[in-house]
Amino acid sequence: RGICGADRHTIAARQVARMMAAGASAHAEHGRHILYALKKVVDGSVKAFSIRDEAKLVAVARRMGITTDGRTVNDVAGDVVAASFEDFGNQDEGKHSNWLRALLPAKRYERLKKLGVMAPNIDMGVAQLMSRTSIGCDADPLNIILGGIRAALGDLNGMALATELSDVLFGTPSPVVTQADLGVVKETAVNIALNGHNPLVAEAVCRVAAEMQDRAKALGAADGINLVGVCCTGNEVMLRHGVPLAANYLSQEMVMMTGAMDAMVVDVQCIMPGITAVAENFHTVVVTTHDENKIPGAVHRAVHPENALEAAREIVDLALGAYGRRNPKHIHLSDTKETCIVGFSAESIVDALARVNPQDPLKPLLDAIVSGAIQGVALFAGCNTTQLDQDMNYKMIGRELAKRNVLLLATGCGAGAFAKDGLMTSEATERWAGDGLKGVLTLLGKEAGLDGPLPLVFHMGSCVDNSRAVSVATALAEKLGVDLSDLPVVASAPEAMSEKAVSIGSWSVALGFPTHLGNIPQVMGSDQVVEIMTTGAKEAFGGYFMVEQDPVKAAQKLYDVILERRRGLGI
Amino acid sequence: RGICGADRHTIAARQVARMMAAGASAHAEHGRHILYALKKVVDGSVKAFSIRDEAKLVAVARRMGITTDGRTVNDVAGDVVAASFEDFGNQDEGKHSNWLRALLPAKRYERLKKLGVMAPNIDMGVAQLMSRTSIGCDADPLNIILGGIRAALGDLNGMALATELSDVLFGTPSPVVTQADLGVVKETAVNIALNGHNPLVAEAVCRVAAEMQDRAKALGAADGINLVGVCCTGNEVMLRHGVPLAANYLSQEMVMMTGAMDAMVVDVQCIMPGITAVAENFHTVVVTTHDENKIPGAVHRAVHPENALEAAREIVDLALGAYGRRNPKHIHLSDTKETCIVGFSAESIVDALARVNPQDPLKPLLDAIVSGAIQGVALFAGCNTTQLDQDMNYKMIGRELAKRNVLLLATGCGAGAFAKDGLMTSEATERWAGDGLKGVLTLLGKEAGLDGPLPLVFHMGSCVDNSRAVSVATALAEKLGVDLSDLPVVASAPEAMSEKAVSIGSWSVALGFPTHLGNIPQVMGSDQVVEIMTTGAKEAFGGYFMVEQDPVKAAQKLYDVILERRRGLGI
Repeated sequence: RGICGADRHTIAARQVARMMAAGASAHAEHGRHILYALKKVVDGSVKAFSIRDEAKLVAVARRMGITTDGRTVNDVAGDVVAASFEDFGNQDEGKHSNWLRALLPAKRYERLKKLGVMAPNIDMGVAQLMSRTSIGCDADPLNIILGGIRAALGDLNGMALATELSDVLFGTPSPVVTQADLGVVKETAVNIALNGHNPLVAEAVCRVAAEMQDRAKALGAADGINLVGVCCTGNEVMLRHGVPLAANYLSQEMVMMTGAMDAMVVDVQCIMPGITAVAENFHTVVVTTHDENKIPGAVHRAVHPENALEAAREIVDLALGAYGRRNPKHIHLSDTKETCIVGFSAESIVDALARVNPQDPLKPLLDAIVSGAIQGVALFAGCNTTQLDQDMNYKMIGRELAKRNVLLLATGCGAGAFAKDGLMTSEATERWAGDGLKGVLTLLGKEAGLDGPLPLVFHMGSCVDNSRAVSVATALAEKLGVDLSDLPVVASAPEAMSEKAVSIGSWSVALGFPTHLGNIPQVMGSDQVVEIMTTGAKEAFGGYFMVEQDPVKAAQKLYDVILERRRGLGI
Repeated sequence: RGICGADRHTIAARQVARMMAAGASAHAEHGRHILYALKKVVDGSVKAFSIRDEAKLVAVARRMGITTDGRTVNDVAGDVVAASFEDFGNQDEGKHSNWLRALLPAKRYERLKKLGVMAPNIDMGVAQLMSRTSIGCDADPLNIILGGIRAALGDLNGMALATELSDVLFGTPSPVVTQADLGVVKETAVNIALNGHNPLVAEAVCRVAAEMQDRAKALGAADGINLVGVCCTGNEVMLRHGVPLAANYLSQEMVMMTGAMDAMVVDVQCIMPGITAVAENFHTVVVTTHDENKIPGAVHRAVHPENALEAAREIVDLALGAYGRRNPKHIHLSDTKETCIVGFSAESIVDALARVNPQDPLKPLLDAIVSGAIQGVALFAGCNTTQLDQDMNYKMIGRELAKRNVLLLATGCGAGAFAKDGLMTSEATERWAGDGLKGVLTLLGKEAGLDGPLPLVFHMGSCVDNSRAVSVATALAEKLGVDLSDLPVVASAPEAMSEKAVSIGSWSVALGFPTHLGNIPQVMGSDQVVEIMTTGAKEAFGGYFMVEQDPVKAAQKLYDVILERRRGLGI
């Protein structure tokens, strides 16, 4: 109990609610950055990018209730931009998120509104949470947590617009075969690692690197420029360009320890400031690119939508320059790498299903769920944490659920873990999937023209792409006429670490999903807060947190929840 | 150094910048609450309040560049409301705060813009700071602190609109004689304490209490209902209604320990959650009134602009009911109280000066500063802290500066400290002021029709009213054609405690004021951050932090800075 009288319950609630707000602010900022870029494309002040996926734009606009017929792409995009800015700036207390209305089943949207956990806009939700958790304000743990969830729904809002507008600008991912793990770094190429979360800089680097291959070859790099991904920027370019993934969060420093990494280009989020200290021991140039995200010891090249290509060329130049300064004695490459099939956006999942039933693409999936061939769906999201062996929980829980016929989706560092583990292959499906799941994935693989089944785990993108999984769940719920909290769908963040994961987990609960954490959240000092986030949340939202550190037990608990949900649906 | 590589400089910078953002969010939320109330008054959906100070509205509108001639009060107010909402919602990166443009000298506004520390809106400044301080984002201490100041300027923005729009709705304070300290609690009255920061609830209680006096007398309370103030809500109603102040922050629990406090009505900020534990030992009813600020163990009566009077009546009813449950054995009243003259808004200071020179009211003050009769101006702001003897630093530094002919302004808990110390009287001026200062205050007192000089310390209001002091400084700077950083004006938060104080101190530095802290800020683990907030800040902004725990030395240092500034002006 603090001297002001705030007890452990108040303190724990304030603390975790601020984590939700911080996480939301990060994802929303990512979204805002993409939104400003799209706005400038629409108003013509940015020429480096363009609207690459018009079909996606139209689909997004329609879901938002924006007229598309007989209008130019630019006009429609202008309205989408305006509706998106409303989600950041709306001051009308009676109005709420345009993007969440488009994303969620109407039932869920109304339920959240009724519970008072929808802020008029994302920034307001964050700022008001900061205010109510400041000295001598809200001291009621339940009230505080609800305020936190109000901020956390802004996280979903921000990531939904980040994801969908990135697709509009850079293309919607579709399946692509690539590789993952440290072995993707090549001795015979100028290696550039793309690290962070926001794809804008990496998109520009991908573009200019393609044009600058000859410069690298002229320097003696037989394989030209080899872009590799790290963390979620890695996932973004992996899905859209097939760029191989060298590392997820916790092994980002290892990428430089190959001795062959010529530049690491970073944007925002989950970039260890320690990379500059590691780089000092090698020839690697670390380049920061966002003015509000600098690292002491790094070279800073500000990349804005307006100068993206020129700045990207300068950055590749830095890598080309560094290549000549490699120290052969420091080169210790890894040969560990796995093939992976990635790029399962909601659209590409529907496309795969449409090959079975073009009239009613969701029907084959629903039929499989109803029949029990697929028992349920699990989304793996979240981070790596130094509290645990890297990736281990993902690998173990994933295998356990697959054999119980649970369809596995993954984003962010979870997706990186599965990719590196070889679970994003047909072979993995053959080996680990239960018979029902294997049958469905084999049928879909055959219809897609593959030699074998679809991969055991669907890589949906970066951690900001969790909204893709929500889109799929919403489609299922609407088809069944139920709410998200009725579906046999669970989420797991088995190695959660960041405030963003706290925020994602919280909206996942608010959407109605049972949400597993594999490590202990920082609320255990308060039994009241624990009660609120488990039993209390279940009553209010249908979703709730479940903590289980043992991966085998966690899988069983998640499966039990899926079975409970199936019973609820009478299937 | 964290395992991610964030060193103590990064960690300290992130930590203190988040404090700035949290403080800004609190003051901005206070402002937003008042803004929503004014909006509803303007659109006719709220009848309990009205535009009480039309002259203030017109003055505010003119400073914002809003046409007033030939327009109705309601039309003008509508435009002020819209411009204020822009300060919360504007998404145009090239546009900045309407209120700061109206408040600050043009030179300062442009300088802040050029330094990149003006966010497009208040909430965005807070949310972006939360984002850039989350895992793996900004690691550069200087960059982070600038981001914090960007959020902190939203604090000033929020408090400026909170203060001015409160004046529009509830009246601009002018001098009033009242009393301060625990002795204002009366055995012979139904006592109701008004605690918190936001005046809306307290205004409603003041209104209905006046109508309900007879009910209290009928219960045997000879003196009817006795409203007393606590903390900054106390300051608000003290200045506007002459309600006596029972306590500032650190002694709020003592108010109930008189055994005669029938209800404590709280709104937001600096309300110790511990008051309910104290109240359990007495008959006192603790009433929370804001839905986003609840306290376990309190009675909750939601007060909105729409239901303010009805809810206030219910609250007074609770107090009347509690009165009958007093335990005579628990009554231990204090006889300590001091008379005080309070209510020095910028307008009332100009009014006092206008009695000397109606054509050019600021001239007498400027002449006094130029001649050295007044050496400079010191604003005392900020909190009480359990690290120090309550109020002691204010009392000692104030006396020391007064004898050196420094004009003393105070807000918030500082103002409470001086009021309780008897320094807001003519007698205090006679006793403690240096000859020059005494001469000026005596002349002004005589012109104002007082028996003696104006008080030694001018009570400018609650901590959200620090913008009143900025208005005075801006008027002086514009009159002299200089920037705020040229003026012999200093600020002191000698007993800082809250995140709001961190935010206030930070914008004070950004505005160009040397800003004293009397206790150690939580950045001492990083010499880099200390350097940024002292030497670095001086270079960028002209203002800087100075830490001095010894009050006598602190006064000397503040005076030395005033002399340095005088030399800079050649006076």
